[in-house]
Amino acid sequence: MDKVNLKQKLSHFTDYWNPRIVGELNNQYVKLARFKGEFVWHKHDNEDELFFVVEGHLKIEFRDKVVSVYENEFLIVPKGVEHRPVADNEVCVMLFEPAATLNTGEKRNKLTRNDLEKI
Amino acid sequence: MDKVNLKQKLSHFTDYWNPRIVGELNNQYVKLARFKGEFVWHKHDNEDELFFVVEGHLKIEFRDKVVSVYENEFLIVPKGVEHRPVADNEVCVMLFEPAATLNTGEKRNKLTRNDLEKI
Repeated sequence: MDKVNLKQKLSHFTDYWNPRIVGELNNQYVKLARFKGEFVWHKHDNEDELFFVVEGHLKIEFRDKVVSVYENEFLIVPKGVEHRPVADNEVCVMLFEPAATLNTGEKRNKLTRNDLEKI
Repeated sequence: MDKVNLKQKLSHFTDYWNPRIVGELNNQYVKLARFKGEFVWHKHDNEDELFFVVEGHLKIEFRDKVVSVYENEFLIVPKGVEHRPVADNEVCVMLFEPAATLNTGEKRNKLTRNDLEKI
């Protein structure tokens, strides 16, 4: 039952698109990640996904629009909705999602991360 | 699929210990609340509860210790664990918990809030 300091946890890693687990509750994970560049288009068939921006500017592209998310803002992407996270510059993001969620959704490629590290 | 700005949502209300729902995902709610003073001792038999401090300083008292949580930090209180949120000064908190969670846990009193407002 220790508190989690987001900035302190972020100092543990510098790589992109590789979420770390920093909390677990009710079969959901709290994750922290650094994003930079363009991710892949994907969707999660069974999981809604929350992106909370800790630092920087995150764009979430949808097939029909783009939503810009800044510090102290979050966006929930409902299950089944195709999306692509894009960060022109580095952005630090906190994710809330079910423990079963795979970062690349229905896609499997070099960006897919299994067995996320707990920090 | 609109983003949520925490500060903007917080400007909708000024009362204490009355969480508002600002997001829903995977049968979990994201809530925002202002706390000031001492809440009641309680526990949630079936739900883990996450307290993320948006602004200010939150103390979570446990029977055997106190944890101080500051801006950009969170604490997860596991199900079944008695706790009491205390705020010497006003603190703005984001909560993440199952939709079924009642603010006063197993207690029912004047602080109990049913039918939370969605803002």
